[in-house]
Amino acid sequence: MSGWLAVAGLGPGDDALVTDEVRAALAEATDVIGYIPYVARVAPREGLTLHPSDNRVELDRANHALDLVQGGRKVVIVSSGDPGVFAMAAALFEALEHRDRPEDYDIRILPGITAMLAAAARLGAPLGHDFCAINLSDNLKPWELIERRLRLAGQAGFAMAFYNPRSSSRPAHFARVLDILREECGPQTLISFARAVTTPDERLQTVTLAEATPDMADMRTMVIVGNRDTRRVGSFVYTPRRAG
Amino acid sequence: MSGWLAVAGLGPGDDALVTDEVRAALAEATDVIGYIPYVARVAPREGLTLHPSDNRVELDRANHALDLVQGGRKVVIVSSGDPGVFAMAAALFEALEHRDRPEDYDIRILPGITAMLAAAARLGAPLGHDFCAINLSDNLKPWELIERRLRLAGQAGFAMAFYNPRSSSRPAHFARVLDILREECGPQTLISFARAVTTPDERLQTVTLAEATPDMADMRTMVIVGNRDTRRVGSFVYTPRRAG
Repeated sequence: MSGWLAVAGLGPGDDALVTDEVRAALAEATDVIGYIPYVARVAPREGLTLHPSDNRVELDRANHALDLVQGGRKVVIVSSGDPGVFAMAAALFEALEHRDRPEDYDIRILPGITAMLAAAARLGAPLGHDFCAINLSDNLKPWELIERRLRLAGQAGFAMAFYNPRSSSRPAHFARVLDILREECGPQTLISFARAVTTPDERLQTVTLAEATPDMADMRTMVIVGNRDTRRVGSFVYTPRRAG
Repeated sequence: MSGWLAVAGLGPGDDALVTDEVRAALAEATDVIGYIPYVARVAPREGLTLHPSDNRVELDRANHALDLVQGGRKVVIVSSGDPGVFAMAAALFEALEHRDRPEDYDIRILPGITAMLAAAARLGAPLGHDFCAINLSDNLKPWELIERRLRLAGQAGFAMAFYNPRSSSRPAHFARVLDILREECGPQTLISFARAVTTPDERLQTVTLAEATPDMADMRTMVIVGNRDTRRVGSFVYTPRRAG
């Protein structure tokens, strides 16, 4: 097989946060595949075919990419953020698992600045101590498992970063998340809402869990909850390195 | 105050993983501060003073930077990886907290590719589901808290990424970590050792927890433990998006 596949992270939105490694792959590609708004970030050029697709077709997209590679094409699947964090890399390997001779495919995963780290940087250093990252969508796991993880993460004293905090189909879930956090982490723990970071629509807000309401998050919001030591300094929020 | 401070992430080692945002800050800086090997990655030029310092002097380094900013200098503190993940950003805010009028300082945190995401990309997608990041050093927290977090993370079914897995002063600790993981996650769970990723010294190794031995990690190794669904496909390791 002479084709290759790169799964590349475009970062949170600002082009100054795209790595040269990703730029180089895009410059050599014959085909770019991905969710419509991410493919829209790639400049068209002669010899490059863009394949934008709708959301929630990750496996179709991965199989399409693998078919193109089998045909000798040089393919980049674009993700926002980092492809390995709740994005296309895992979906690609799920598709690869069902192929004959998966080891014959030339595949590279190209990391990017994931939303949680871009948001943390804009806020200060809320993830400056041990932390966890949880996808709050229950599309691919039972809601009960999410609740259990939230409780254990609170008991562990992890700071937490939440991807996909609010689903339009199940708006009550995020209210339930806030209730659980108030119980496990205490009402004075800080929670930050970082919307569309590094884009013109960026909006940052930090409140206590007691003050937090579900409408503070939408699907473009990264939510970061501190641990009990997380505090403000000037306009920033940070979690000290020391604990216990 | 006319000076400014940027705390910048240089990524895991490969210059192709440095963002343009960080390059731009370095190009405007009058002073670069940081741990010796990270400052060594910045090219000298006229008008730029390099201030390399030894490890474990994070607060001194932060205060030095703030003093320079008060004097009108344009200062970049360099971290490897991402400054917000077990690096200089939290230390900077700790120092800032003890200053008069912290809000007068012009401070930006510039994200980078943190070691865990660079390692995950080289391995495949081991962090493709909910995960946590734990600093295994007990310099700034009691060892008992680390053990407790490991157990709760295992019970939560998180994949885990470990920074600073082995301290030369306490080599027995990492053996204890492996024992706890075998108990909580089961001996067949995969563990990956990713040493010096994206550098000429890179070495990748994946085994089961039953097979893992402490000498597989040193201080340049990022350790990533999968959850019970983590598996191999071709030469890669990945954690499926679906669970439960």
